[in-house]
Amino acid sequence: QWTLLDWKPKKPDMLVDTFGFGRIIQDGLVFRQNFLIRSYEIGADRTASIETLMNHLQETALNHVKTAGLLGDGFGATPEMSKRNLIWVVSKIQLLVEQYPSWGDMVQVDTWVAAAGKNGMRRDWHVRDYNSGRTILRATSVWVMMNKNTRRLSKMPDEVRAEIGPYFNGRSAITDEQSEKLAKPGSTPDGDATKQFIRKGLTPRWGDLDVNQHVNNVKYIGWILESAPISILEKHELASMTLDYRKECGRDSVLQSLTTVAGECTDGHHPDDTIQCDHLLQLESGADIVKAHTEWRPKRAHGEGNLGFFPAESA
Amino acid sequence: QWTLLDWKPKKPDMLVDTFGFGRIIQDGLVFRQNFLIRSYEIGADRTASIETLMNHLQETALNHVKTAGLLGDGFGATPEMSKRNLIWVVSKIQLLVEQYPSWGDMVQVDTWVAAAGKNGMRRDWHVRDYNSGRTILRATSVWVMMNKNTRRLSKMPDEVRAEIGPYFNGRSAITDEQSEKLAKPGSTPDGDATKQFIRKGLTPRWGDLDVNQHVNNVKYIGWILESAPISILEKHELASMTLDYRKECGRDSVLQSLTTVAGECTDGHHPDDTIQCDHLLQLESGADIVKAHTEWRPKRAHGEGNLGFFPAESA
Repeated sequence: QWTLLDWKPKKPDMLVDTFGFGRIIQDGLVFRQNFLIRSYEIGADRTASIETLMNHLQETALNHVKTAGLLGDGFGATPEMSKRNLIWVVSKIQLLVEQYPSWGDMVQVDTWVAAAGKNGMRRDWHVRDYNSGRTILRATSVWVMMNKNTRRLSKMPDEVRAEIGPYFNGRSAITDEQSEKLAKPGSTPDGDATKQFIRKGLTPRWGDLDVNQHVNNVKYIGWILESAPISILEKHELASMTLDYRKECGRDSVLQSLTTVAGECTDGHHPDDTIQCDHLLQLESGADIVKAHTEWRPKRAHGEGNLGFFPAESA
Repeated sequence: QWTLLDWKPKKPDMLVDTFGFGRIIQDGLVFRQNFLIRSYEIGADRTASIETLMNHLQETALNHVKTAGLLGDGFGATPEMSKRNLIWVVSKIQLLVEQYPSWGDMVQVDTWVAAAGKNGMRRDWHVRDYNSGRTILRATSVWVMMNKNTRRLSKMPDEVRAEIGPYFNGRSAITDEQSEKLAKPGSTPDGDATKQFIRKGLTPRWGDLDVNQHVNNVKYIGWILESAPISILEKHELASMTLDYRKECGRDSVLQSLTTVAGECTDGHHPDDTIQCDHLLQLESGADIVKAHTEWRPKRAHGEGNLGFFPAESA
């Protein structure tokens, strides 16, 4: 809680984002927004969930487009895209998480866009702890255009390039070297050390649907992790993730989630080992929705103490 | 996006909550915090979901306790409670929603506490649109203390009453008259016009668990609505809800959700009618977790237009 008296801005530019709407900085090439981590955004281990962090990425992407005055009549589509019934669809997301923030922490999200090949757009994010400046995560994504009526991919019209081109920024959140080291989905060897897990019968809840009654891409993460063994979720934290999106999923879809684990996922024999997982989310009828690869590192021990209970727990 | 130039505070006290942490107002008897509705907090109908609104209630309750300097070593428990291994558990929540906010809207949440009988505490909330001042929702809740080791309810120790008593506020968010009109769970007549719906096999996802690996009370709402017919969710909005919490639910629970509908829930014969539902969330082994009653009113039509697609949708 801040009062006028003890309020000492770190940087003069803090004043311009009083309400956390975000703003454009660095000659218009970066959009920056702060988020306070809330009690309902943390998980069983008291730190922000990966879904929370991805929600913040989504929100800054949309606010970037909005603040740049490029919001057409949709969510993220530019005026020239809206005229042509074009929408953005994500084809790939890659994240490297260095640390997870806790309740009450303020995170600062920077995001910017760049060209990706001839017809795509790259969007990067760099998330830092607002107070320490330490990196929380780095992420990059690739977006392409789809005609929302024909559901076919589209080339980028020159008029759209003219709208968004001035915002393109050469900087990369993830270096080529880091990117090379990240395994691709499906790259885990099918050896003896590999264990497979499956979770069937996953269906969207009403609350998973977005404004188009399609499942929002962040919700897929929860399903992907549904098939990961609980021992991984309990004792490890997600260090990196690559998501390849293949197909959209609507409200009547029934999905299954498959996870293949390479490395030890049972109780603490090799606490320093990272675990590699491959994931596949598919319709029970067969089509692939998302392929993913995740890497997990042991959780840092932090004092548990006598935590007390969440007040929001039922009697 | 605000800049120094066009930034004209409505009230001088806006300055003291620059970062949205919230603050205590009105002689210490009310805690106020603002929330900006984010893109990922809205549902298929483009307005904030009921879960989002309840998350904001939870967050302000916790921040109120924190800001008052009464946070023990847990989430919401006071120091004297923590000493005695006591935790707060919610026994009842009642909400009246007048309107639902949209992406980018700023809502202002006021919350305060009062006595509830000899051993309980009441917590009320009044949520308004920050710009228009119009009421968004009114809510009240009753909390009791439980020993977290024995899991038995406890009387309120005098030392705890001394800690929280000075914050008790006589004001009510919901009038007695409004409260009387709200039907109690289980009050729907079992007549011919009644339809029953059931959804079995509900299990917590990893992300549904709170810091104690228990399911957070807000998550129950999603499950309760799982058994409501989709036609109600599509064409109506929740006008009021009463939740009676009976028992906690852990990560290995398997639940079923039952909904009984009184009134017409099929396509638009009586578009002005409200619909009354009774809900029961229970373990498949039989024990009741939550009983609820909801009232729904027809959604106000708003121009759909050519909305474009959510950019976060998969290719």
